[in-house]
Amino acid sequence: MDFAFDAVTEGYRRRLLAFMDEHVYPAEHQPDLGALQRAARELGLWNLFLTGEHGAGLTNLQYAPLAEIMGRSPSIAPAALNCAAPDTGNMELLAGFGTPWQQDRWLKPLLDGRIRSAFCMTEPEVASSDATNIATRIERDGDQYVINGRKWFATGGMSPRCEIFVVMGRSDPGGPRHRQQSMVLVPRDTPGVTVVRGLHSFGYDDGDHGGHAEIEFADVRVPAEHLIGGEGDGFAIAQARLGPGRIHHCMRLIGMAERALELMCRRVTARVAFGRPLAEQGVVQDWIAGSRVRIEQARLLVLKTAWLMDTVGNQGAHTEIQAIKIAVPSTVEWILDRAIQAHGAAGVSQDTPLAALWSRARTIRIADGPDEVHRRSLARRELRRFSQ
Amino acid sequence: MDFAFDAVTEGYRRRLLAFMDEHVYPAEHQPDLGALQRAARELGLWNLFLTGEHGAGLTNLQYAPLAEIMGRSPSIAPAALNCAAPDTGNMELLAGFGTPWQQDRWLKPLLDGRIRSAFCMTEPEVASSDATNIATRIERDGDQYVINGRKWFATGGMSPRCEIFVVMGRSDPGGPRHRQQSMVLVPRDTPGVTVVRGLHSFGYDDGDHGGHAEIEFADVRVPAEHLIGGEGDGFAIAQARLGPGRIHHCMRLIGMAERALELMCRRVTARVAFGRPLAEQGVVQDWIAGSRVRIEQARLLVLKTAWLMDTVGNQGAHTEIQAIKIAVPSTVEWILDRAIQAHGAAGVSQDTPLAALWSRARTIRIADGPDEVHRRSLARRELRRFSQ
Amino acid sequence: MDFAFDAVTEGYRRRLLAFMDEHVYPAEHQPDLGALQRAARELGLWNLFLTGEHGAGLTNLQYAPLAEIMGRSPSIAPAALNCAAPDTGNMELLAGFGTPWQQDRWLKPLLDGRIRSAFCMTEPEVASSDATNIATRIERDGDQYVINGRKWFATGGMSPRCEIFVVMGRSDPGGPRHRQQSMVLVPRDTPGVTVVRGLHSFGYDDGDHGGHAEIEFADVRVPAEHLIGGEGDGFAIAQARLGPGRIHHCMRLIGMAERALELMCRRVTARVAFGRPLAEQGVVQDWIAGSRVRIEQARLLVLKTAWLMDTVGNQGAHTEIQAIKIAVPSTVEWILDRAIQAHGAAGVSQDTPLAALWSRARTIRIADGPDEVHRRSLARRELRRFSQ
Amino acid sequence: MDFAFDAVTEGYRRRLLAFMDEHVYPAEHQPDLGALQRAARELGLWNLFLTGEHGAGLTNLQYAPLAEIMGRSPSIAPAALNCAAPDTGNMELLAGFGTPWQQDRWLKPLLDGRIRSAFCMTEPEVASSDATNIATRIERDGDQYVINGRKWFATGGMSPRCEIFVVMGRSDPGGPRHRQQSMVLVPRDTPGVTVVRGLHSFGYDDGDHGGHAEIEFADVRVPAEHLIGGEGDGFAIAQARLGPGRIHHCMRLIGMAERALELMCRRVTARVAFGRPLAEQGVVQDWIAGSRVRIEQARLLVLKTAWLMDTVGNQGAHTEIQAIKIAVPSTVEWILDRAIQAHGAAGVSQDTPLAALWSRARTIRIADGPDEVHRRSLARRELRRFSQ
Repeated sequence: MDFAFDAVTEGYRRRLLAFMDEHVYPAEHQPDLGALQRAARELGLWNLFLTGEHGAGLTNLQYAPLAEIMGRSPSIAPAALNCAAPDTGNMELLAGFGTPWQQDRWLKPLLDGRIRSAFCMTEPEVASSDATNIATRIERDGDQYVINGRKWFATGGMSPRCEIFVVMGRSDPGGPRHRQQSMVLVPRDTPGVTVVRGLHSFGYDDGDHGGHAEIEFADVRVPAEHLIGGEGDGFAIAQARLGPGRIHHCMRLIGMAERALELMCRRVTARVAFGRPLAEQGVVQDWIAGSRVRIEQARLLVLKTAWLMDTVGNQGAHTEIQAIKIAVPSTVEWILDRAIQAHGAAGVSQDTPLAALWSRARTIRIADGPDEVHRRSLARRELRRFSQ
Repeated sequence: MDFAFDAVTEGYRRRLLAFMDEHVYPAEHQPDLGALQRAARELGLWNLFLTGEHGAGLTNLQYAPLAEIMGRSPSIAPAALNCAAPDTGNMELLAGFGTPWQQDRWLKPLLDGRIRSAFCMTEPEVASSDATNIATRIERDGDQYVINGRKWFATGGMSPRCEIFVVMGRSDPGGPRHRQQSMVLVPRDTPGVTVVRGLHSFGYDDGDHGGHAEIEFADVRVPAEHLIGGEGDGFAIAQARLGPGRIHHCMRLIGMAERALELMCRRVTARVAFGRPLAEQGVVQDWIAGSRVRIEQARLLVLKTAWLMDTVGNQGAHTEIQAIKIAVPSTVEWILDRAIQAHGAAGVSQDTPLAALWSRARTIRIADGPDEVHRRSLARRELRRFSQ
Repeated sequence: MDFAFDAVTEGYRRRLLAFMDEHVYPAEHQPDLGALQRAARELGLWNLFLTGEHGAGLTNLQYAPLAEIMGRSPSIAPAALNCAAPDTGNMELLAGFGTPWQQDRWLKPLLDGRIRSAFCMTEPEVASSDATNIATRIERDGDQYVINGRKWFATGGMSPRCEIFVVMGRSDPGGPRHRQQSMVLVPRDTPGVTVVRGLHSFGYDDGDHGGHAEIEFADVRVPAEHLIGGEGDGFAIAQARLGPGRIHHCMRLIGMAERALELMCRRVTARVAFGRPLAEQGVVQDWIAGSRVRIEQARLLVLKTAWLMDTVGNQGAHTEIQAIKIAVPSTVEWILDRAIQAHGAAGVSQDTPLAALWSRARTIRIADGPDEVHRRSLARRELRRFSQ
Repeated sequence: MDFAFDAVTEGYRRRLLAFMDEHVYPAEHQPDLGALQRAARELGLWNLFLTGEHGAGLTNLQYAPLAEIMGRSPSIAPAALNCAAPDTGNMELLAGFGTPWQQDRWLKPLLDGRIRSAFCMTEPEVASSDATNIATRIERDGDQYVINGRKWFATGGMSPRCEIFVVMGRSDPGGPRHRQQSMVLVPRDTPGVTVVRGLHSFGYDDGDHGGHAEIEFADVRVPAEHLIGGEGDGFAIAQARLGPGRIHHCMRLIGMAERALELMCRRVTARVAFGRPLAEQGVVQDWIAGSRVRIEQARLLVLKTAWLMDTVGNQGAHTEIQAIKIAVPSTVEWILDRAIQAHGAAGVSQDTPLAALWSRARTIRIADGPDEVHRRSLARRELRRFSQ
């Protein structure tokens, strides 16, 4: 057992921290994404999330502390390094399950940062955390697939740069429970596709990553070669995509928590009430200690989960991935709440990043499966250990 | 001791509940405030908040359950009945401390719902929960007062219908701690007044009540008769204004909580996941029971506080006013959080009122003094009982 | 609506508070129960819990603040006034459902404080919160009932003064779900009755009320006239007994919380660490404010519940009785925990009453149905309001 | 970074797990400590806690998972392996600061498990978390030290096998703040030493480790060579002793939590209420998931802290030692509370180890400095990072 970072990680951390100081923080109020991406690329800070040949070749354990640092400025840094959701998940999906033609057509421009993508899974009418509820139809008709249905909270879908939708739907409603779904690639400009509106999250339209779209698919036709994997592979591919997606969220959330704690410490040191700095109030100290202790624990669990993914695979790390999905967003929400309170009215306003960060953390407690579903599932696995 | 409403209250409740069903809920998506106000006025549902001759003559205890009902639709109902903050507090202030001329000039149109007003107390640069921190200057110059300073989170100040600002400032920096402040009436169109921008609250610009304004006062001159009360009365008047303001917030918050609980119950009854309605999940039942139990306790404390204000005065109810300010917003925030979670992605979006209600409840934990200040003060009074 | 006590209540409160100061607190370390009971009886402070002719004739609402005061010294005061569980519940049961012969034989000496009693409901082998699980058999055999089974946590059952057991068992296992149970009176010295051992609660043997007994009934025979009510009435009688029992627990718990808060305030005022009294630590102030706010809310809910029992009956107050059973013990546990922490090592020791009080509060979260059962039931009733 | 145990640790873990199954669990109801110790010693499971030549030579990181396993049966296993507090801390102290004579006289028999010891630091009259409050006097008189004062919560002090007290007192009240204290070795049978009474912890007298003693020192005289270190070294030695002591507590607490979770899972699988096993109740599943997620995080923080102590020293690990002292006991208390609730009445009784384990965890939130002191100190260090 060893808790020190390896040399590769340390090297990337140093470069990334410098990049944050020189390029990201100063640009937070008016970012020029193109310039940031060029700078990141020159420094070799590009596609760090992607294991294997297509990406930087880092392990999950090596990537985790880098994603954390990007999470300190989550509207800018991940996009600047081409490590932003949902493109990361979609690139992993295409790298792992796409055909050479699909990779050439969509993975390549995504890896280059030239286009963006959206993942269309959640539906407004059903509890999508139970994937077997999904109602959108994907039907074979000759050498085409016909898609009908309505998706929402397709993150990034409002962006004009978003060119491709990965759509999950039901191709075989009578098949075995986890073989009913398929996944197809639907270009945004396909006839029958309508981006209906953007969904808000606590008043924010999440403009930075293009917003959460509601999208209607009405008799949308795509060639059969747009199918990802085989028919009936949809559920398995979605599971494969969501594991890394969840840990990436958690890595970035740790960074958001560190940012919040730093802002809180700076604020309470500078702000005076009733004759002394807020930093001398016992209650405020309690928030700070509580934040630090929670961050340390959450980070270690994320790192161990990354290590498990590297050593025993995503499936072997299933319990831990659920554990961080349960633990980290609510922990970071707690920290952000205290940081907001320490800032008074400024904390809820646009003058600090805190309220927007809070809205992100809170929303992740619902996205990719609400906390409750993960808790139930984790408990059942725990119980199985003792049930005979 | 008796927990039943009196006949007057019951009569108002019946009429108000009918008004909500017939006029308010159906208008929530596209309210016509003018029509709503006319309808409310015809039904005698007008200025219910105001005790004494200027208003409906209800006691605080009689008003409390009515304010709760309005709170079920807080963006519309209070405004429809001319019971919306911050005008309520400003009308109480003018009714209690205004000169006949001031009352004729501003209280009358406010009572008529013809204009709106803002209360300018909080400042961006200092911890305003400690009123002695206030830096804005109000200086006598001949028969005028000259105001210099910067205020923010002046609720309602962005509305074009907002014609008058009640401004708190320091008139005698060398005077006794609680006699340094004065309060003046500043018409919005006075030279030197600049409404700089609107402040957001978790992404919401709070358009319904005109938004929270940041306002600059640069050598603003008003006639001496714009002073409310006497010089040095500012702190006392502010305290007198804030007590009722706090209980009004709490009354409405109870209604918001009831609305959230109702929406949660409806949602979980209708929504199916993993083969059964969410309503059958033990964790969801736990939220519902927890919400009901918390609401009942919070409401009773608000009602008792109203009764104390009626029987022993606002000063005698000081501890209880602090107690509800501590207890109610955080309780209602808790309930709203569960209602949001029960709605999944819809809960954070614009498709339910929940996220916006949450943002209100959360913000009230900071407004009119953060929780921490009230807790400290209440604890000190409790300790005094045992300290010799 | 009116939050003031009536004159009768105020009179009793004055006398009881004086009795506590003069007789109870000074005797806490070495109580002489006989002397205390004589003093209480002389002052007319006797059987206050019992509504109707047999008792003092107070309403539940009048009794509530008196029970609260007794709760400040729960090992002594209730027993001194003959208002201690489980005798209170057993006396109510005999007063309401006993035959004249049963009342003469057992109610009379109980009302006189000459004997004590136990209620034998919970069984070690089954989840007794679901009364239909009860396995103890009560079978008719000629003019006798034969009892076989094992009960535990029969509070008071270890006391040598405990002469009578009220035993719940199954008389008709094939009958309708809530008509299978009956209740019989079993004198302690009946052949076949074995008091096996005392159960502890967090290390305490609860000696003051005679301890929680485990009791075996092996072919125990009692005359048929020992049946309470009719065959099959057991479930209904138990429900009737438990409602008042639960509110009595909650009333006393409020008093325990007040005692804890007072001890905490005194301690932190006197104790100095790091150069100033603990009372000046913000975190400690937070505990005190939180305790006060929680107590006020909990008390009001208990009082309203008592009022409902008086005005619409125990059945009409069902939801509220569950609400206080959910809210009050956990709230008081929270307060006791802080009071303990404020006392440091002394708080967990025998040098303050706090640890023992904590153990009581914690245990009540399980007794008379665990919190979870009440929460589930309350939620279901709430959901029913919205389910069509 | 690597989360796998090394081979040495794995070997010890295997042997210790077997020892628990074969010797400890079966003996829990009636342990024969002598036999257990002989068996442990034969298996090389002896003095594992002690780094360096005197002990097994394990690192803290290697010892942590072993202490965790012992913590599953904390009344027996640590004593069986001669790894029980407070002897562990006293042995470390003697190994690190004792003279050869002191080591020969007391460390040797302690390492052999022939005698036991107590650490006398806390005093009833002052807040001992602030070591400068300590009032006990240690005064030089010729070639003797004279000790006067009163200590309490001297764990183990009630045991007849406890032969030696390590006593902290003030030798130079006028000296610099952290040089006023000294530490001396006082044999239990020295004239003037009176073991006054045993202190309880929530009703438990903690018989297993000999109970918490209150001890009076009245003109107690010991030879000057009983001084540990030099005069004025008391504070520094105490700090050196407490760091490892705290992590040992936390390691064992993790084991207690695992034991509680296992008991909870077994119970809810076996117990039926309302027609199905408790294990199928959503709320119970929530407890189980919450317990697992909390345990994983707490354990990782303990392990990282052990690694830091090994790599950068106890001083370098100061923040992390405080972090685990803050996080672990309260976390484990939370888990034990749920396990108790899942067991119903049995949970608070002597029929499961849960209530006694709970009392241990709760008490540790006060012992070795209450949570609040550690939180304040940790917050201040965090704030220092940002205060320019």
